[in-house]
Amino acid sequence: MNFGERLDEVIAKQGSLLSIGLDVDVEKIPPFLNDFESPLLEFNKSIINATAELVCAYKLNLAFYEAYGIQGWRVLRKTLELIPPPVLKIADGKRADIGNSSRKYAHALFNELDFDAVTVNPYLGFDAIEPFLADSLKGVFVLCLTSNPGAADFQFLKVNQKFLFEIVAEKVVQWNLNGNCGLVVGATQAEQISRIRAIAPNLPLLIPGIGAQGGDLKTAISYGLAQNNGRIIINSGRSILYTSQQLDFAQQAYQQAVKLRDEINHIRSKVVTKSRKKN
Amino acid sequence: MNFGERLDEVIAKQGSLLSIGLDVDVEKIPPFLNDFESPLLEFNKSIINATAELVCAYKLNLAFYEAYGIQGWRVLRKTLELIPPPVLKIADGKRADIGNSSRKYAHALFNELDFDAVTVNPYLGFDAIEPFLADSLKGVFVLCLTSNPGAADFQFLKVNQKFLFEIVAEKVVQWNLNGNCGLVVGATQAEQISRIRAIAPNLPLLIPGIGAQGGDLKTAISYGLAQNNGRIIINSGRSILYTSQQLDFAQQAYQQAVKLRDEINHIRSKVVTKSRKKN
Repeated sequence: MNFGERLDEVIAKQGSLLSIGLDVDVEKIPPFLNDFESPLLEFNKSIINATAELVCAYKLNLAFYEAYGIQGWRVLRKTLELIPPPVLKIADGKRADIGNSSRKYAHALFNELDFDAVTVNPYLGFDAIEPFLADSLKGVFVLCLTSNPGAADFQFLKVNQKFLFEIVAEKVVQWNLNGNCGLVVGATQAEQISRIRAIAPNLPLLIPGIGAQGGDLKTAISYGLAQNNGRIIINSGRSILYTSQQLDFAQQAYQQAVKLRDEINHIRSKVVTKSRKKN
Repeated sequence: MNFGERLDEVIAKQGSLLSIGLDVDVEKIPPFLNDFESPLLEFNKSIINATAELVCAYKLNLAFYEAYGIQGWRVLRKTLELIPPPVLKIADGKRADIGNSSRKYAHALFNELDFDAVTVNPYLGFDAIEPFLADSLKGVFVLCLTSNPGAADFQFLKVNQKFLFEIVAEKVVQWNLNGNCGLVVGATQAEQISRIRAIAPNLPLLIPGIGAQGGDLKTAISYGLAQNNGRIIINSGRSILYTSQQLDFAQQAYQQAVKLRDEINHIRSKVVTKSRKKN
């Protein structure tokens, strides 16, 4: 078994393509949580208890934990312990360094911490990614096309008629010898997802930017699934987490997550039906 | 004052372009240190005490600390406290994320921890780097050309007759509005340093890969200084740190560091003399 197949199983079992981004922020959580010893951990615990049955993964952006130093790493570690299998734990750290250092990062995220998948940055090339690929059960999502304005600076540069992000996608297809590679593609780049799917029909796509960043859900899912061949994870963070500042915040997060999961599944069912009719 | 000027002052005061990479590794430090409560901290303390007068900076690769989890972060924080001003503390984490997350990384490294400079990855473009640039006294070294084989995958791609790494250098020159940008250029890419200097004559270059990675010191320094206009930091890690496994390891590190500092200064003095003769 490899990560791609593992993802298929988790998606089937959970009936969901939704990932929730646990981007904790003391300034955004309900103020009453400050009475707890660890407000951030209490927040994550409530969100996980309320939503774990609705998701295939939680994505933890490491920046939000590192911002709180050692205390943040403690919350990170304890949060991972609260996530029930088979739900996947994705470390969104966008790491990469020369081989010797990347081995240390891979150890930190897959062994020291117990993540199931990571995001990595392609700029340093293959040997910077290779240490993350060793365990075929662990997923490695390589940044391909991001949802921010700066994506235009390099990702859209033209190299022999192709965009740089397309060349990244081509390389990752070559690197996928263990069946555990994926791509990060911002949801605000929905039209580009079809270009990426043409290059990488079977790689799992991690699609952040739904909700707060305003990505187009329907286009992203339709192109991402690519006639039911594709594996996709749709991540949403702030628009689920911070709906209420009251005692009912976890209940509100549950409602938002149900709504988004169902919306995704609805679009998915139509794409799948369409695809079946075609065949 | 900005980071570039600050670096000039530190280099002048310390009389050194040398940075030591504190890449701690329990499997490489002298075994007798395992009797101490924190072997890694004890190692760093001895190295810093022995070498602080010989360097302009210490570079801490975050991967090596994260590999030890919370304990590693504790060693990281305490190591920073041991580095005496004006010696610069460089966080080599090669971070970058969309703006909201990069702000958190900047906070983690510049405020939560007390680093003077960071390394960052350019792939996500300007707004991923911008949060690191706000404080003009803090340095931001953008990955330009790395010393690993994988550099060929993307950094040497041709975009309109130019290598991608040259376009990165051009962009960073534009981003340097606060005078605190620099570039990371691997020492194994010595011949390319002259191309980068032609694009970015005044940006500080952080040049790792001297020693264990086999970079050519003389070429790197000559092209990096570019007739005395350029600011460079030459980083060496393992070949200084792990010379002895005995009680004298810090003394041996001191000897290695003196030798390398003097070698660099010797090459530098010749480049400077040559440049003066020309003018």
